[in-house]
Amino acid sequence: MNTSFGPYRKLQKRARQIALVAGASELLGWDAETGMPPAGLAFRAEQLAFLGGQAHRSWTAGVVGGWIKACEDAGFDPASPEAANVREWRRAYDRATKLPAALVEKFERIRAVAREAWRKARERSEFALFRPHLEKLLDLNRRKADCLGFAESPYDALLDGYEPGARAARLRVVFDSLKAEIGLILGPAMERSAGTPSDLLQGNYPLAAQMAFNREVAGAFGFDFSAGRIDATTHPFCCTVGAGDCRLTTRYRENDFTYSLYSILHEAGHGLYEQGLPAEQFGTPLGTAASLGIHESQSRLWENHVGRDPSFWEHWHPIACRHFPGLERFRPEQLTAAVNRVAPTFIRTESDQVTYDLHILLRFEIEVEMLEGRLAVADLPARWNDTFARLTGLKVSRDSEGCLQDIHWSLGDLGYFPTYTLGNLNAAQLMARARAEQPGMDASLAKGEYTALLAWLRDRIHRHGLRYPPDELIQRATGEPTGAAAHLACLRRKFGVSS
Amino acid sequence: MNTSFGPYRKLQKRARQIALVAGASELLGWDAETGMPPAGLAFRAEQLAFLGGQAHRSWTAGVVGGWIKACEDAGFDPASPEAANVREWRRAYDRATKLPAALVEKFERIRAVAREAWRKARERSEFALFRPHLEKLLDLNRRKADCLGFAESPYDALLDGYEPGARAARLRVVFDSLKAEIGLILGPAMERSAGTPSDLLQGNYPLAAQMAFNREVAGAFGFDFSAGRIDATTHPFCCTVGAGDCRLTTRYRENDFTYSLYSILHEAGHGLYEQGLPAEQFGTPLGTAASLGIHESQSRLWENHVGRDPSFWEHWHPIACRHFPGLERFRPEQLTAAVNRVAPTFIRTESDQVTYDLHILLRFEIEVEMLEGRLAVADLPARWNDTFARLTGLKVSRDSEGCLQDIHWSLGDLGYFPTYTLGNLNAAQLMARARAEQPGMDASLAKGEYTALLAWLRDRIHRHGLRYPPDELIQRATGEPTGAAAHLACLRRKFGVSS
Repeated sequence: MNTSFGPYRKLQKRARQIALVAGASELLGWDAETGMPPAGLAFRAEQLAFLGGQAHRSWTAGVVGGWIKACEDAGFDPASPEAANVREWRRAYDRATKLPAALVEKFERIRAVAREAWRKARERSEFALFRPHLEKLLDLNRRKADCLGFAESPYDALLDGYEPGARAARLRVVFDSLKAEIGLILGPAMERSAGTPSDLLQGNYPLAAQMAFNREVAGAFGFDFSAGRIDATTHPFCCTVGAGDCRLTTRYRENDFTYSLYSILHEAGHGLYEQGLPAEQFGTPLGTAASLGIHESQSRLWENHVGRDPSFWEHWHPIACRHFPGLERFRPEQLTAAVNRVAPTFIRTESDQVTYDLHILLRFEIEVEMLEGRLAVADLPARWNDTFARLTGLKVSRDSEGCLQDIHWSLGDLGYFPTYTLGNLNAAQLMARARAEQPGMDASLAKGEYTALLAWLRDRIHRHGLRYPPDELIQRATGEPTGAAAHLACLRRKFGVSS
Repeated sequence: MNTSFGPYRKLQKRARQIALVAGASELLGWDAETGMPPAGLAFRAEQLAFLGGQAHRSWTAGVVGGWIKACEDAGFDPASPEAANVREWRRAYDRATKLPAALVEKFERIRAVAREAWRKARERSEFALFRPHLEKLLDLNRRKADCLGFAESPYDALLDGYEPGARAARLRVVFDSLKAEIGLILGPAMERSAGTPSDLLQGNYPLAAQMAFNREVAGAFGFDFSAGRIDATTHPFCCTVGAGDCRLTTRYRENDFTYSLYSILHEAGHGLYEQGLPAEQFGTPLGTAASLGIHESQSRLWENHVGRDPSFWEHWHPIACRHFPGLERFRPEQLTAAVNRVAPTFIRTESDQVTYDLHILLRFEIEVEMLEGRLAVADLPARWNDTFARLTGLKVSRDSEGCLQDIHWSLGDLGYFPTYTLGNLNAAQLMARARAEQPGMDASLAKGEYTALLAWLRDRIHRHGLRYPPDELIQRATGEPTGAAAHLACLRRKFGVSS
C-alpha cells in the first residue's frame, strides 16, 4: 500500500483544497485585525462564515468518509507516514460528522450573543449579565461531548479536540503535583524579585526602534522573513496564511519595549514551528502542528527558556543599546531580573512564569467541575475567588479581574486552557533534553547562536507534524511522557529554591 | 413579478456567494501586491486559481441557467431594476458557459508562459522571443470570439466583455475624429509647455508627507477612509475586497510628489465610484460598476478634470506648502502648468493628457487588424513604429519602448485598451454636463469643495450600477452618446487652441 492508492490520493487532494480555502480565511482574519477598514466588518464576517461552512461541507461529504474507510481497509503499514494521515483524517472526520448541523448552528448563534454579553459583563464587572449565556454554552458543550463520546469525563471529549489523546484524569495527576510545588517556589521567588522595581525598565522606546530590534532577534532565532512578516494588532498572534507565509503580530507600548519584544519571542516560537513543518505535506496532518500544547511548547521555549535565560541579555544587551541607548545604564543581569520578576497578578496574560500555571490550574478545575455537573454556573465567582486567594494570596474584588477576564468561555471554548500549561511543561522538558544532548548549548546561547537548538527542535518536533500523537511525540523527543519535573526544576534553579 | 420570485432570489443568493469568494480572491490579490512574503507566491497562485475555478463552477452550474430562464419567462417589467439584473446575469452566464473548459484551461496555460516570455522579451527588447506566444494568444482569442459569437468583427466579442454593447465599428468613427483633432492640438500644446521645464517640481518630498497630503486630498474628494485605505504597490490600483472595503494603492518617488499624488487622484476616482455603488445590491449587477470605460471615466474625471484644473492648485497650493515647504517658491499657476506639461513619450503610462489617447488609438487599430487577420504578428513591430512616428513624431528605436511596453497582450487581453479612451471621453462629457447644470461648480472647485460634484456623479452614474448599459448610462447622464467633442473642447480650452 502506498501513496498512489486512489482513495488516499483523493483525500490528499481534498485536504489540499480545504487548506487553500482555510488559508484564504486565515488571511481574511489576519486582515480584519491588521488593516481592514471598520465598515468592512459585516461583509467580512459573512465571508468567513461562508468559507468556513464551505470547508466544513467539503470535509464532511459522504465520499470523504468512504475514502477514509477504503484506506483503513486497505491497511497501510501502521508505522508509515500514510497511516498517520489516515488516523488523523479519521479523527477529524469523526469529530466533524458526529455533531449534528443543528447543534453546530445553535452553538454559533449562542456564541455570537454570548460574546457580546461577556464584553458588557466584563466592562461592568457584572457576572449576572454573562451567567445565563454561560449556562447555555455549558449545556451545549455537554451535548457536544455526548455526541463526540467519551469514556470517563465529558471534559475528555472537548480536550481531545485541542490535544489529541489527552485525558482529564491524567492531567489532574500532573497538575496537582505542579500546584503543590509551585506553592513552595512562589514565596522565595517573590522575595528574590523584591529588589527589582516593576518599573525598572520604563523609558521612551520609539516604535520604529522596537520593530527593528524585534525583527533582529526573531531573525536571529531563525524566523524566515522571506516566508513571514510581523504586524501590529491588539492581541499578538501567529497565523499561517499558506505554505511559505507565516505571520506574527505584536503590540507596542512606547514606555516598555519588553511588552512587544516578549510577545514576538513567543509568537516567533510558534512561527518557527510552522516554518519547520514539512512544506510538501502542507494541508495534510503530516504537515500540521501536533496539538495546541505542542505549539505552545515551542512558543514558551523561545520566550522563556531562551528569552528569559540569563544568556539572552548577555548577548543582546549591547545590541539592544544600539536601538535603545537608554539601556546603557543597566547591566545584563538587571535586564534578566526585570523580565523574570515574580509577583502574582489577577490577570493571567500579565502573570509571571511562576504563577502563570496557577491561573491555568484554576480554570481547568472549574471547567471540569462545571462540565461534570459538580459546580453550578451561579457558584462560579465564589469558587473562583476562593481558590484564587488560596493559590496566590490575592483577593479578587471585581469579577472583571476574576472569572470574567478571559474571552475563551464566551466563545464556548472549554477544554482549551490546559494546553497552555502543557506547553509550559513540554517546553521545559524539551529544553532540558536539548541541553543534555548538546553540551555546548549554553555557550551557543550566550553568543546568540540558535542554529543548533532550532535544528534539534526541527528534528525532534517540527518535521513530524502530526505523525505521532502529542504524548508520543514528547516521549520520543525527550524519553519521557509530559510531566512537571523539568518545569519545576527550571523554576527552582532560576529562583534559587532547593527541591 | 417582484424580488420574492423564487428563481430570482436564488440568483441573488448565488451571486452573493460568488461575491463572497471573489472578495476573498481580491484580498489575496491585494495582499500579494502589498505585503505577502515572497515564499508565499506559489501557494497564493494555487489559491487564486482554485477560488477562481470555484466561483466559475458555481456560476456556470446548470441550475443557474435554469433560474435565469425562469426569470426571463416570468417577465419582469423591462424598466424594473430586477430586469436589469436578469439581463446582466444572462450576459455573464452566456459569456461564461459559451467557452469550453478546455479552451479556458489552454488559455490559462499559454498566458502563464506568455507572460514570462514577454518579461524576458521586454527586458532584452527582443520581439522574436514574444512573437510565437502572441501568435498563440491571438489564435486563442479568435477561437474565443467564435465561441462567444459576433455580428461584424471578432473584436466585438472581446470588447463586449469589458464594455457591454460597444462595437469596433462605432468606436472607429469616434476614434478617427479624435485622432485627427488631437493632431491639431498637439503642436500648440507642446509649444505652450515649452516654458515649463520637465524637472520644475523636482525636490525632496519625504514619503510620510506625501502620504499625509494624498490622504488629505482623497478625503476632501469624498473618499471614505472608514470604508477604505491606501497602500503602496509597484503599480497603482483600486480594488474592492468587500462591501465597505475599497482599497487604493500608489507608488512613491521621493523627488516628485506628483507621481504618487496623481495616481491617488486617479485611483480615488475609481474608489469613489465603488463607494457610491448601492451597498444593498453588492454582488449583483445593480451593485456593480457599469463597465471599464465608465470606471475609467470616474478616475479620469477626478485626476484630470479636477486635479489638473487650475482651480485645484488655487485651493491646494497653500495646503501643499504645509506638507512640502519647498513648494512655497512656486505660484499655483506654475504647479498647474507643470502637471499639464505636454510632450510626447514612448511610454503610454507616462504620457500627457493630449497624447495619451494616441497611444490607445494605435493599440486599438493594431488589435483589430490582428484579430481580423489583416496584420500578421510578425509585422507588428514595423506597423507599431510607423504609426507611432506618424502620430507623435517620435521614432521608436527599441521594441521595449514600443510594442513590448504593455503587459496586456501577454495576458491575452485584447479589446481592453479602448476602455481607457472611452474613459477619457466620458470623463470630459460628464464634467461638461456637470458644469452646465451646476453654475457654481467652478467657484466650488476653487474652494476645494467637491460635495456637489460628487453628489452629481453619485446621482447620474454611481447609484445605477449596471442598471443601464454604459452607452445608455452616458446618454441619460449627459444627454448624448459617448463622443469626442467634450474631450477635444476641454483640451483646446486648456491649451488655448481655437477649434
